[in-house]
Amino acid sequence: MATNIIVKARTDAPSVTRILADFVTTHPSRGWSDSVEHEAHRTFMNWLGCAIGAAQHETLNSALAAVNMLEPAAQATVLGRNERVDIANAALLNGISSHTFDFDDTHLKTIIHPAGPVASAVLALAEKIGSTGREIIDALVLGIDVSCRVGNMIYPQHYDRGWHITGSTGSLGAAAACARLLKLDVDQTTMALGIAASQPVGLREQFGTMTKPLHPGAAARAGMISALMAQQGFTASERAIEAPRGFAQVISDKQDWDEITNELGERFEISFNTYKPFACGIVIHPSIDGCIRLRDEHGLKAGDIERVELKVHALVLELTGKKTPKTGLEGKFSVFHSCAAGIIFGSAGEDEYSDEVVNRSDVIALRDKINATIDPTIHEAAADVTIVCKDGRTLHVHVDRAIGSLENPMSDEQLNAKFDGMVVPVLGADKSDALKELCWKLADAASVSGLVGNARP
Amino acid sequence: MATNIIVKARTDAPSVTRILADFVTTHPSRGWSDSVEHEAHRTFMNWLGCAIGAAQHETLNSALAAVNMLEPAAQATVLGRNERVDIANAALLNGISSHTFDFDDTHLKTIIHPAGPVASAVLALAEKIGSTGREIIDALVLGIDVSCRVGNMIYPQHYDRGWHITGSTGSLGAAAACARLLKLDVDQTTMALGIAASQPVGLREQFGTMTKPLHPGAAARAGMISALMAQQGFTASERAIEAPRGFAQVISDKQDWDEITNELGERFEISFNTYKPFACGIVIHPSIDGCIRLRDEHGLKAGDIERVELKVHALVLELTGKKTPKTGLEGKFSVFHSCAAGIIFGSAGEDEYSDEVVNRSDVIALRDKINATIDPTIHEAAADVTIVCKDGRTLHVHVDRAIGSLENPMSDEQLNAKFDGMVVPVLGADKSDALKELCWKLADAASVSGLVGNARP
Repeated sequence: MATNIIVKARTDAPSVTRILADFVTTHPSRGWSDSVEHEAHRTFMNWLGCAIGAAQHETLNSALAAVNMLEPAAQATVLGRNERVDIANAALLNGISSHTFDFDDTHLKTIIHPAGPVASAVLALAEKIGSTGREIIDALVLGIDVSCRVGNMIYPQHYDRGWHITGSTGSLGAAAACARLLKLDVDQTTMALGIAASQPVGLREQFGTMTKPLHPGAAARAGMISALMAQQGFTASERAIEAPRGFAQVISDKQDWDEITNELGERFEISFNTYKPFACGIVIHPSIDGCIRLRDEHGLKAGDIERVELKVHALVLELTGKKTPKTGLEGKFSVFHSCAAGIIFGSAGEDEYSDEVVNRSDVIALRDKINATIDPTIHEAAADVTIVCKDGRTLHVHVDRAIGSLENPMSDEQLNAKFDGMVVPVLGADKSDALKELCWKLADAASVSGLVGNARP
Repeated sequence: MATNIIVKARTDAPSVTRILADFVTTHPSRGWSDSVEHEAHRTFMNWLGCAIGAAQHETLNSALAAVNMLEPAAQATVLGRNERVDIANAALLNGISSHTFDFDDTHLKTIIHPAGPVASAVLALAEKIGSTGREIIDALVLGIDVSCRVGNMIYPQHYDRGWHITGSTGSLGAAAACARLLKLDVDQTTMALGIAASQPVGLREQFGTMTKPLHPGAAARAGMISALMAQQGFTASERAIEAPRGFAQVISDKQDWDEITNELGERFEISFNTYKPFACGIVIHPSIDGCIRLRDEHGLKAGDIERVELKVHALVLELTGKKTPKTGLEGKFSVFHSCAAGIIFGSAGEDEYSDEVVNRSDVIALRDKINATIDPTIHEAAADVTIVCKDGRTLHVHVDRAIGSLENPMSDEQLNAKFDGMVVPVLGADKSDALKELCWKLADAASVSGLVGNARP
């Protein structure tokens, strides 16, 4: 076809596709610090808990019903359910469920949720080909490094344009991780990344619909299939990421190539991964954190409280200022409900955002005693909480960095408790305990058979 | 997540997603002219021939080997082969093979190859759910109308940015066609289009690799699964195509909303579909056409010819000026080989671009007698051909619109011959004859069982 050729300015990009392929292929197993290694286990466990927690949600029921039209082979586990499907659809479904509650991990610099695409593809493939836990952790660290470095290269212009960056970079991360797991060589891995580059997934317009969690699932599937095709000799451009008509220049106005190579193999993006303690937008986390701290410190009960005064950043009321939520979903957009639930239950997980809890009379009564005012001296990650008790006590805490932030991460114990909150209602306490143990020791596992066995009801 | 919200200017777009869904859902069966109906059959047959023709190509061997890792259920036919796979992977594989030779249909206004994504999804789904031929033609016309109207809306800026428009609009066309075939209601069809909008496929950087034909295949698969998910209650934004962070504004700088609604249901984009007579870039089609016309008119043989003089547009030599091609693929970039093959064989199909033919001594001898000069008065779709014979005759033809253009379309007989050229080497003459007959009468078929039965070796 005789089309006029319009070449954009950036023909001088480094060989990003091949550089990343070389890194994924040759970086040594466990070639990183103890803290990176530990963070990989935390990332995996948090992802697994989220996926199991949403396993029975209507989002997954609907997606699984569609997949069943394909009569998939029973190759891999749908987490939290008894169904087994082929590995590509397992990647799809587990990716969907892991993001359904929007409770998964966040690479704050790019707001990528990195585990969804990568871990979903890795676990499904590992179950089929018999990978060891060591190989899985290696693939997870390297795959997440690829998707987050690509994200660093194109963020924020790419996100501002309207792409859901988790899905658009996730295909590359999943392809990289699967290529590693399949032990592809550098040429094949270059092709896997190239094939995946043609399949970015996800529009921000979908936020608030089931298609939002579809994005990491579809990215997981696309990445895995790209690696399987590359293994079979399928070809792509070896400059698919960086060429003038390649991934980075087609879907973003910014391409900072240095983000790919800076400290590659020395600094690992998984180090900057964070986990949400509360099942709602991050903007109200400092307020909830303050309320729970005062509750725990002083043994407060709802009946003790005269009133609660919050001083917050303007965005808190703009985004989550709903005074009288009627449903669980509306509760996520109410700082008042969230803090009331935090004080009564000591947590704000998915359970505290059920329709039932939002409409409980004791929750509503406490909610109505909570006031929030904007304080221009308070930054977005902070909150100032004062609780006035009926007995005259005035309790106060200033939260500068909420729990779950990079500066104040959730402890392993808190991640365990979050995991239980997601998994126990679906699988029971025994399996939740077994899974936690298996997650913390994943690198030593000879296979994932114990893990996926315990991930079924 | 407290992200600053950047809303682009175009918040006033009409409800494109729902308008298209309403059209696809409610437009009456065979609600168009005889010529649209006939063009749909031509489009289907040309697509089928291309898919069968490339069925044994290494591109498809490689893709099928990857799909076989998923142990797919035997739900639908891989055209031209004995394997059967699940309907989503059949859509993928048939979409790949139909575009492998770059010999499929072209909607010239957008250079979309519309049948690949749409027909590949439709036939696979129809085989599973038992659709009639009438339903298939309806779905094909409506699905192609959706992808080409969306293409009209965003072309050429979308293509100039680097998107392979066949894949990026193809997910929507395939979703629309499958929604029609599944008899989804307007709300479900809106969701199907919405889900598909998050999955545009294809970078132009991939041209020249196997990932180019992957694009229509992956679009076919994505569109079909989107429709299956919508049928099961999966949700998406009902403004996924037109919203500020939706499909059209995220992947193009141009959005001409009127292209969606102008004469919707009256003018059908499939009317503007064209079919390539020669298995090479359109830029050299006028030269080949001229050579074959003189050959046929005067009963010319290679030995009769003293020399051939071509006057051509500058792009012909820029893109296809290779004097001494060594391989079949290089032959496609040689106007000299192409014209020599046209004179010797009377055609320039995939067979005339084999390594063997390119290196035959009689082809090389004639090729060396062909000269081409640039004539600035000749437009891109034209060529001027003069053949000087050894017996002193000088034969001349000026080709203003080559065969296969919209103004000078291939006849049904020529499409039949093209089909045979693709299908006979794979399936033999009897099956090729049976398939042609079934294609021309597709609208009357009670099912596709006869068609897919004859499409296997």
